[in-house]
Amino acid sequence: MSELQTYLTENRAKFEADLSELLKIPSVSTDSRYKGDVREAAAWLHRQFDQLGFETKIYETAGHPIVYAESPAVPGAPVALVYGHYDVQPPEPLDEWQSPPFEPTIRDGNIYARGATDDKGQMLTHVKSVEAWIKSVGKLPIQVKFLIEGEEEIGSEHLVPFIQEHDEMLECDVVVISDTSQFGPGQPAITYGLKGIAYYELKLTGPKQDLHSGTFGGAVTNPANTLSKMLASLIDDKGRVQVPGFYDDVDPLTDEERDQFASLNFSEADFMRSIGVEGLTGESGYSTLERRWTRPTFDVNGITSGYQGEGAKTVLPAKASAKFSFRLVPHQDPHQLTESLTKHLETLVPPGIKMELIDYHGAPGFVVPLDSPYMSAAAAAIEKGFGRPPVFIREGGSIPIVTSFVEQLGVDVLLLGWGLNDDNTHSPNEKFCLADYHRGIKASAALWQTLSKITPNQA
Amino acid sequence: MSELQTYLTENRAKFEADLSELLKIPSVSTDSRYKGDVREAAAWLHRQFDQLGFETKIYETAGHPIVYAESPAVPGAPVALVYGHYDVQPPEPLDEWQSPPFEPTIRDGNIYARGATDDKGQMLTHVKSVEAWIKSVGKLPIQVKFLIEGEEEIGSEHLVPFIQEHDEMLECDVVVISDTSQFGPGQPAITYGLKGIAYYELKLTGPKQDLHSGTFGGAVTNPANTLSKMLASLIDDKGRVQVPGFYDDVDPLTDEERDQFASLNFSEADFMRSIGVEGLTGESGYSTLERRWTRPTFDVNGITSGYQGEGAKTVLPAKASAKFSFRLVPHQDPHQLTESLTKHLETLVPPGIKMELIDYHGAPGFVVPLDSPYMSAAAAAIEKGFGRPPVFIREGGSIPIVTSFVEQLGVDVLLLGWGLNDDNTHSPNEKFCLADYHRGIKASAALWQTLSKITPNQA
Repeated sequence: MSELQTYLTENRAKFEADLSELLKIPSVSTDSRYKGDVREAAAWLHRQFDQLGFETKIYETAGHPIVYAESPAVPGAPVALVYGHYDVQPPEPLDEWQSPPFEPTIRDGNIYARGATDDKGQMLTHVKSVEAWIKSVGKLPIQVKFLIEGEEEIGSEHLVPFIQEHDEMLECDVVVISDTSQFGPGQPAITYGLKGIAYYELKLTGPKQDLHSGTFGGAVTNPANTLSKMLASLIDDKGRVQVPGFYDDVDPLTDEERDQFASLNFSEADFMRSIGVEGLTGESGYSTLERRWTRPTFDVNGITSGYQGEGAKTVLPAKASAKFSFRLVPHQDPHQLTESLTKHLETLVPPGIKMELIDYHGAPGFVVPLDSPYMSAAAAAIEKGFGRPPVFIREGGSIPIVTSFVEQLGVDVLLLGWGLNDDNTHSPNEKFCLADYHRGIKASAALWQTLSKITPNQA
Repeated sequence: MSELQTYLTENRAKFEADLSELLKIPSVSTDSRYKGDVREAAAWLHRQFDQLGFETKIYETAGHPIVYAESPAVPGAPVALVYGHYDVQPPEPLDEWQSPPFEPTIRDGNIYARGATDDKGQMLTHVKSVEAWIKSVGKLPIQVKFLIEGEEEIGSEHLVPFIQEHDEMLECDVVVISDTSQFGPGQPAITYGLKGIAYYELKLTGPKQDLHSGTFGGAVTNPANTLSKMLASLIDDKGRVQVPGFYDDVDPLTDEERDQFASLNFSEADFMRSIGVEGLTGESGYSTLERRWTRPTFDVNGITSGYQGEGAKTVLPAKASAKFSFRLVPHQDPHQLTESLTKHLETLVPPGIKMELIDYHGAPGFVVPLDSPYMSAAAAAIEKGFGRPPVFIREGGSIPIVTSFVEQLGVDVLLLGWGLNDDNTHSPNEKFCLADYHRGIKASAALWQTLSKITPNQA
């Protein structure tokens, strides 16, 4: 194994040069002027895999291509599938960049370029770690498959059908994704849970047209009044969702999780300052991190009704509508929620109002059990790479593609984030800390080793 | 008095020709292309008054002119002030008119033209009735003053300061306005009460920008969630406003009023059909007419927050705001309401939200006592003109200029509507029933007589 470590140490400059090469390609997926560059980034990756002797292919889609590669099978060992993306966000506004977005520049130990952390730099740690194994040991201790897409920043439209069509090729025991962040500088993290989502639009219709609120008010049911009542009914003053049965399948937080979150160096004051508020609220009985990461929530995402221009207009609106969503935790079923929600809202529809509830999309939440052997393998590998054990965190957001992996492939997903929260993802001056890049490569290299100790059917 | 009746009978064709002449002038106040026509309508009225030997003057304003006229003083008799307007709404959409809007056309006993009922036709009944008195009897039994403006359709901006500046000239015992409707065909009405209004905008501000509802939901107070709660708190499920003290100064409905409204030929089924709803709601314990005319109400007039476009966007909005208004009944004080409302809402502001309440405008409601001698005089006059006693109705809307008369001049206002609800006011094919025009002239002529029996200080 010392050959591996030697390779990792001796090739730091090469790894940085490779990253820089990839970052120079302006693979902006949303902008058709960059179509050739997006293809060039795919080709660049394809060459990387080809040079390692991997079976690799560029799959065409109706949009940008998908790069697939796999190392030789290792019987008896688990198979890991690395997912990442080589496309990037547009760089605009250009005049806010200190150095041009596609001329990677190193300042203070960080490499600045569009895509540095999201996701070229993070994704490349896994490509460089397999390179290190092949070039030093000669082979990998497990089979590693790579699925690198070019449409993550525009909705991964063609990836989900691709996964369905190639389910045999993609068969694996664990999915590895590095496209998130550490908990903080020097504190690596494994994101072991994401929330699910159920998104709705509630449309209420009253009279056939806006009416004079003086002549008709008090007699004609006002859809905007009704909407307020209906939305207000969905959550109580203690932040508890009031749809019957909503909490039935919610797992209580374990003491282990509560202790883990409480031990994190999370500053409410800094959090409030960063978003510009002077107080926080939420479900009572839970800390801010617990609420954000582990408790189901209800948020109105938009409301519209009646007169919204300057000044006063005395209308009784004909219509009122709201978009709202619930963030779900594992075991909460979005379909079941739609049923209970519909029933609940129907009891609140007053005479003179017609209700329509549109169910936009639902996805269940997931957690990887903390006692999963893959989780332990990842933790051990990260400790080797970063010199410090990771903390285990969850995330309130939903990453639809992760849900697709969980649903389509039926395997655990390891979200191993090498980035930092201030990496300016999607913003000017995106960066990636080069020390974290090398730690990520080292952790990834260790991961193939720690995963190889697992007997697949044991998981 | 038989000379008067003879004049009224013999001059029906002349009255119609005069109305037609005025209706031909396209005095659209909102459109600067018609500025000369608006002035021509004012001049036309000025000539009418001048020919009767009235003192009359066209007062310039920063907008359109105000026509003022008065007949000679009659010591010991009350003074009546007729208010009306000679400006009209724009005629668009032109292609929906069966005959051109400024070419008055008679079909089925109605005269069709923009302004036919609102307000040229109705206003002219009073001009023609004083003409009849002067031309037949030689003088009026009371002093009648006329205040006819050209900006009613664009907000009467210059009338309120005009009333303030000319309070001595406008001194009177009663104001007469014909710019409303009968209760139904063949059933004249006196509108003896209007609601007041208190209009607000509530602005809630949360985080400094829209946030990701997954990452921040459940921890950061959502302004749209809060807005729903606050609006919902303002009214209960029985339609009762929940601002403390809201009903303290509300007079109970008298049995006389309840009986009067109950006896009206009001069809809930027709009402619902006309506005396209299948049910009605409102404050429990009151009939639909009682709620519309006599009970204070709360209506949300507009709401806006967060994402309102197509599809789903998972934002936790930075802001949420609503416009809403209360319709007030006599003795409810809009300023007092603003205070109680502010206090009430302040108790509901959760941590992390900043609230701003904008007080747009408030006006108290008013009723003319049913036992006022002016009311009796008007009822008797209407019975003479229409052959049937009027019913006494109220209106849920607020007419700011009426409130100004009540507040500035401190007198009763008689709202004597000669129009019909289907006159297409503000719409294509506006009309006025010629039989009602003549009945209105006859009622107005009788009114000067019945008013003359009142000793002013008796009122």
